[in-house]
Amino acid sequence: MTTLHDDLIVFDGLIISDWGRPIFEAMAAGGLTAANCTCSVWENFRDTMSAIGEWNTHFRENADLIVKAKTVADIRAAKAAGKTGIVLGFQNTAAFEDRLEFIELFKEQGVGIVQMTYNTQNLVGSGCYESTDSGLSDFGHEVVAEMNRVGMLCDLSHVGPKTSQEVILASKKPVAYSHCLPAGLKAHPRNKSDEQLRFIAGHDGFVGVTMFPPFLAAGNDATVDDYVAAIDYIVNLVGEERVGFGTDFTMGYGAKFFEYLNRDKGYARQLTEIWKVEFPDGLGSIADFPNLTAAMERAGWSETKIRRVMGENWLSLLDRVW
Amino acid sequence: MTTLHDDLIVFDGLIISDWGRPIFEAMAAGGLTAANCTCSVWENFRDTMSAIGEWNTHFRENADLIVKAKTVADIRAAKAAGKTGIVLGFQNTAAFEDRLEFIELFKEQGVGIVQMTYNTQNLVGSGCYESTDSGLSDFGHEVVAEMNRVGMLCDLSHVGPKTSQEVILASKKPVAYSHCLPAGLKAHPRNKSDEQLRFIAGHDGFVGVTMFPPFLAAGNDATVDDYVAAIDYIVNLVGEERVGFGTDFTMGYGAKFFEYLNRDKGYARQLTEIWKVEFPDGLGSIADFPNLTAAMERAGWSETKIRRVMGENWLSLLDRVW
Repeated sequence: MTTLHDDLIVFDGLIISDWGRPIFEAMAAGGLTAANCTCSVWENFRDTMSAIGEWNTHFRENADLIVKAKTVADIRAAKAAGKTGIVLGFQNTAAFEDRLEFIELFKEQGVGIVQMTYNTQNLVGSGCYESTDSGLSDFGHEVVAEMNRVGMLCDLSHVGPKTSQEVILASKKPVAYSHCLPAGLKAHPRNKSDEQLRFIAGHDGFVGVTMFPPFLAAGNDATVDDYVAAIDYIVNLVGEERVGFGTDFTMGYGAKFFEYLNRDKGYARQLTEIWKVEFPDGLGSIADFPNLTAAMERAGWSETKIRRVMGENWLSLLDRVW
Repeated sequence: MTTLHDDLIVFDGLIISDWGRPIFEAMAAGGLTAANCTCSVWENFRDTMSAIGEWNTHFRENADLIVKAKTVADIRAAKAAGKTGIVLGFQNTAAFEDRLEFIELFKEQGVGIVQMTYNTQNLVGSGCYESTDSGLSDFGHEVVAEMNRVGMLCDLSHVGPKTSQEVILASKKPVAYSHCLPAGLKAHPRNKSDEQLRFIAGHDGFVGVTMFPPFLAAGNDATVDDYVAAIDYIVNLVGEERVGFGTDFTMGYGAKFFEYLNRDKGYARQLTEIWKVEFPDGLGSIADFPNLTAAMERAGWSETKIRRVMGENWLSLLDRVW
């Protein structure tokens, strides 16, 4: 019997995992239609291009499971073919280095979503763990304009509050927090206040809700129902047409990788404690997405709301930006 | 009145000029349908990507005149739209550096033709001015296989004879001398012997004929009719379906650029004398291509032969390789 989940467009706004066939098999098992898959955090231009080269190998060797998605049509075609569409994404603009023209080069490779800063200050702006958020730089304004021009979504999840606000105001296209949680449920520098959430939505923006346990009130004791409640908190603030999910699934990586993420530039000062992460009960793997749909049904969501939040809202957003 | 030239597909197998609107206007004036335009010689990966970024600016700012051509269909569409299709090309594999995955990244940007070496030895093989041609390296074999896989033409014009022969044998797709002249008309390390020309043709390959005066018997006194005679020399060796032209037009550049080309790696030892180049009488500019067609008509060529050599043969070749 076909379940509602089988019929859905399921879009995950942020996955950063140890890419390889086991992950792609989990995507298939979870009925994942498409995802924003991180391929650059601290890497420079060359190393990021090299990482995209590795992705091209993944696409060849796992053509039965995944396909590169540059357009929303590609994503819908992936659904029809029973494959998962991969949207290449960055969690930092480090890969742009000092060259505006690199943005279009990455777009051509299929990079559709780029976070402006990762935790700390870079050439573009400031991050959520920087002592002082100096806002969007002059060069950053040029980066936003060029991302608008080529059709690349500005992601603000790890960006500082002042920089985020200035990107929201500067961008001529909708921008997003691809993976964040509400500070209203737990105070944390990575979580967004009700005011911030209303501000991005009030400027035609979008919120993808993460389930990262350290930022959930229940921490590692959280369940998939707590996750659905956090999503609902944001839906109640901004409406069910501006919300999606972005799990921040990190599968297959050990402590070394988390330390790489957590230190500035991958090796410098440590920015936060190194969390011991246990994903919410019922959502321990990318293969478990049917449980997320089931939790939404349990919470009494309408089919329309489930369809929207599970993926259709993401596709509408990306279609407008790309 | 529409002349034969107006109706032709006109493909130039090699132009390396000071890219900008005056060149693109000359292309329009000359009725040039498409050309292999050099965007990397000694540059590394990053600087070559940066050069492609500059090309993207050219495409935007001169959209009335030029368009990027990634496929033969793009070239025919350019003809229909009255624009010139730009095939991005390299005269060296320096931009690949030590990374095979970079080849596919460049292909995605529209790089369709790449010369394996430029005058001297690199990671792939040896050049026509290297003291000893050690042939195609092991890594070079991998480069050829990857270029075959992604659909990128291997160009051998400035490549040494042993390396050329080994590329011809290694490649599973047709390869080309995009711009060369016959040693039978003038002995020179850059010119190809009758044996070499027959060898590439006998292995399903292709020859684009250049008009670079230092390699023509008449030197700077050469005329467009001498150029047509040189083309005919090669047609008589390999047949009229395996020949095209590749002018090597260098417009807008001064002595500094020629020294850059002439020195190994752009700055090291000087490889040949620095020539004072005067293009053949009647073909002093990219705008003068109608005179090339006229010279072929003067030489009594059939319309079919003119159509083939002026461009259709190039398109057949590229269609098979891409």
